[in-house]
Amino acid sequence: MTQNMMAKSKAKKTTILEMNRFDPSHLDELDEHKRSLIRRREILGKGYRLFYSDPIEVVRGKGSHVFDEHGVDYLDAYNNVVSVGHCHPHVVEAIARQAATLNTHTRYLHETILDYSEALLAKMPPEIDRITYQCTGSEANDLAIRIARNYTGGRGIIVTNEAYHGNTDLVSSFSPSIGEGQALSLEAGILPTPDTHAVGEDQIADYMVDAFHKEVARMRRHGIKFAGLLVDSIFSSDGIFPGKAGWLKKLADAVHEEGGLYIADEVQPGFCRTGEAFWGFARHGIVPDIVTMGKPMANGIACSATAVKHEILDAFNDRIPYFNTFAGNPVAMAAAKATLEVMDVEDIQGNALRVGNLFKERLRELAQSHPAIADIRGAGLYIGVEFDDPETGEPMSAQVLELIEQMRERLVLTSNCGSYGNIIKIRPPLVFNEADVNRYIEALQGSLEAIGL
Amino acid sequence: MTQNMMAKSKAKKTTILEMNRFDPSHLDELDEHKRSLIRRREILGKGYRLFYSDPIEVVRGKGSHVFDEHGVDYLDAYNNVVSVGHCHPHVVEAIARQAATLNTHTRYLHETILDYSEALLAKMPPEIDRITYQCTGSEANDLAIRIARNYTGGRGIIVTNEAYHGNTDLVSSFSPSIGEGQALSLEAGILPTPDTHAVGEDQIADYMVDAFHKEVARMRRHGIKFAGLLVDSIFSSDGIFPGKAGWLKKLADAVHEEGGLYIADEVQPGFCRTGEAFWGFARHGIVPDIVTMGKPMANGIACSATAVKHEILDAFNDRIPYFNTFAGNPVAMAAAKATLEVMDVEDIQGNALRVGNLFKERLRELAQSHPAIADIRGAGLYIGVEFDDPETGEPMSAQVLELIEQMRERLVLTSNCGSYGNIIKIRPPLVFNEADVNRYIEALQGSLEAIGL
Repeated sequence: MTQNMMAKSKAKKTTILEMNRFDPSHLDELDEHKRSLIRRREILGKGYRLFYSDPIEVVRGKGSHVFDEHGVDYLDAYNNVVSVGHCHPHVVEAIARQAATLNTHTRYLHETILDYSEALLAKMPPEIDRITYQCTGSEANDLAIRIARNYTGGRGIIVTNEAYHGNTDLVSSFSPSIGEGQALSLEAGILPTPDTHAVGEDQIADYMVDAFHKEVARMRRHGIKFAGLLVDSIFSSDGIFPGKAGWLKKLADAVHEEGGLYIADEVQPGFCRTGEAFWGFARHGIVPDIVTMGKPMANGIACSATAVKHEILDAFNDRIPYFNTFAGNPVAMAAAKATLEVMDVEDIQGNALRVGNLFKERLRELAQSHPAIADIRGAGLYIGVEFDDPETGEPMSAQVLELIEQMRERLVLTSNCGSYGNIIKIRPPLVFNEADVNRYIEALQGSLEAIGL
Repeated sequence: MTQNMMAKSKAKKTTILEMNRFDPSHLDELDEHKRSLIRRREILGKGYRLFYSDPIEVVRGKGSHVFDEHGVDYLDAYNNVVSVGHCHPHVVEAIARQAATLNTHTRYLHETILDYSEALLAKMPPEIDRITYQCTGSEANDLAIRIARNYTGGRGIIVTNEAYHGNTDLVSSFSPSIGEGQALSLEAGILPTPDTHAVGEDQIADYMVDAFHKEVARMRRHGIKFAGLLVDSIFSSDGIFPGKAGWLKKLADAVHEEGGLYIADEVQPGFCRTGEAFWGFARHGIVPDIVTMGKPMANGIACSATAVKHEILDAFNDRIPYFNTFAGNPVAMAAAKATLEVMDVEDIQGNALRVGNLFKERLRELAQSHPAIADIRGAGLYIGVEFDDPETGEPMSAQVLELIEQMRERLVLTSNCGSYGNIIKIRPPLVFNEADVNRYIEALQGSLEAIGL
């Protein structure tokens, strides 16, 4: 066991309530306008968490920037939904045009859904030859689990230690990162976080495959047949652990050996994010059985999908009629199609790779004079910067929370993640450019110095 | 037992596969353009059902009319999502403007969600003082069940015989109308269809309350504590049984006596549909504990919500953090706000009442010379026309399916529903007018004569 692994095994997990969020007891410190907005937000219930001790009112967005009510320009290194940039004109125009023409559902013939589906599946392995639409990543994962269970006859679904796959009743019970208040399913198997920093990049595949077989055996002992592994290949909420391209293939092979399906949750890594491939799974040379996707798909219009091998989807459709009113409607499809066009025309994947590599390079330079930066990792424009105590290897949870606030004061939006909240999450719109990287690095340097890290 | 009740108890239930749908074995009868589109739809899997033996390609919509690729004008008496009319300019403009300005999420301050939430809750009883957003009616009902279970500590959810509440794993298991392929939850209690035609309008309340108490007792015997009743007050998929205003209050009172919550699924009856009130539950003088809504909320943009008494929502939020990426985003809220404004400014509720009453009057006139029309019922612009054999009381399932096709040939879009598919479902955009009613009646008369009914 490495020092970092030991330190982490003793560290207290950060709960969602200790993450980046506005604390209502500080209401009096804000100006009257914000106080009024925040008081009015009571109507949304306690579940609606605002970011930052001084929450931001965002009124306008453009490219990788958002602007508050005073016109202040914030660099956005957080929002992955608007992956081709806030308010991209090609997408905006497609939405406006289609909304003015027609918006119905999939029980009439409409060409856009077919054009889009063909273009999207052309980016998949040929085995994945069917696509069905939903409105949210949660709905896609909910359906994927049902499809996997139907096909395998099993019930057991395996996820990672800090996974988040969505908010429906079913998917919540396979999302440990929601916290202790949410009971996990008795049919959930839990793998450790694939912590390449603590375990080692070359050891991670064997480490995970070993844990996987043990978990399948444990579930079998309880009478639960394994149905599928559901993972996001970046392991975003676990703390961003893409690892070396290819390592995950070994785990996917193990899944098939155990008779289960590999469900690739591409809500985070899909659509060019990793720079190295269009899909996260493709980075590892995996052919999944089911692929779910969401967030960046239509640059902000609710749209998600489940792509499946036909024999697996057919088995489900033969038993259960599935209809989703808003899913695949003409406006959502027009937005998704326009988003995909921008990705191709503007070489968004190439940009994610180039700017992501540059970003990591600049972070590594910065790390030379800041020893609290224990690890810099990522693929494309999904980057994690881990902060551990240089002496003890302990995760620096509180300091990273303070860093996020310091970054906000310097007008840069970024966030944190992982079991201990000690990892800075960099996940900007994919149109992020070199000037944006420079601005981010400058703000980070200032923030580190401000809190003496 | 009435003759109709007896006939129904012996009749074979219509499965979803026998409902209005395109049968691929008739592909060769279509023109080359449609054949090509339908072949391309294979990519969507077998779950994507098209309406009609000659499916319609809809390319444009306006008010209560849609137009196909040849410019043919169809009267739309089916689509309730576009409740203020296809492509209403006020809603279209709000979507286009907001999409060009900003589309993020609820972790930054944004005023539109607050303006809208306040305006919407002002239309509710004061006890319902919190609202939380989702993207689909399925997500809203999924969350509502979890909230009810959390608050009551019970697990049992009671629905009606032919209920449809959505497509997530949880909600599907409480949606008997999905059919035999979908297992119902062991924690589901099932009430009979509140068939006012078979049972009698004045008997229906006692009939349902009696069945309800028996079902609660049955569940208790199996160790399942009752958590809530989930019903749509129009009982749409059961066959459209709004009954007399007020009858449902007795059932809601029984729910509270048994310690459960009343969950009003307003996806169908909400937002002016019944004409008599803004909400379906309000027509019965009920104060629900939880209200779910969806379809017509934003005139086609994915948007849904769960409105809850604060003490009930707080108990859930205290345990479980719930976040939904696209829900309540600025574009969805702009569309929802614009839709609500149109409802108020154009007196959509008044129109639904006036035109709905006129519609029923004209249908009754028609029924005088068509004895197969056994019952005409509805509230506002949600109307059911039941066809039973005048001699035996048997549901005329096959004939109604043929009627729907005849209506389509006469360029009127309408559908059917109910356990036996023998009920014509009339559920147009709420801007339907007198001329539209006349056109519908004329087409129905022609259709009835064409098949000798």
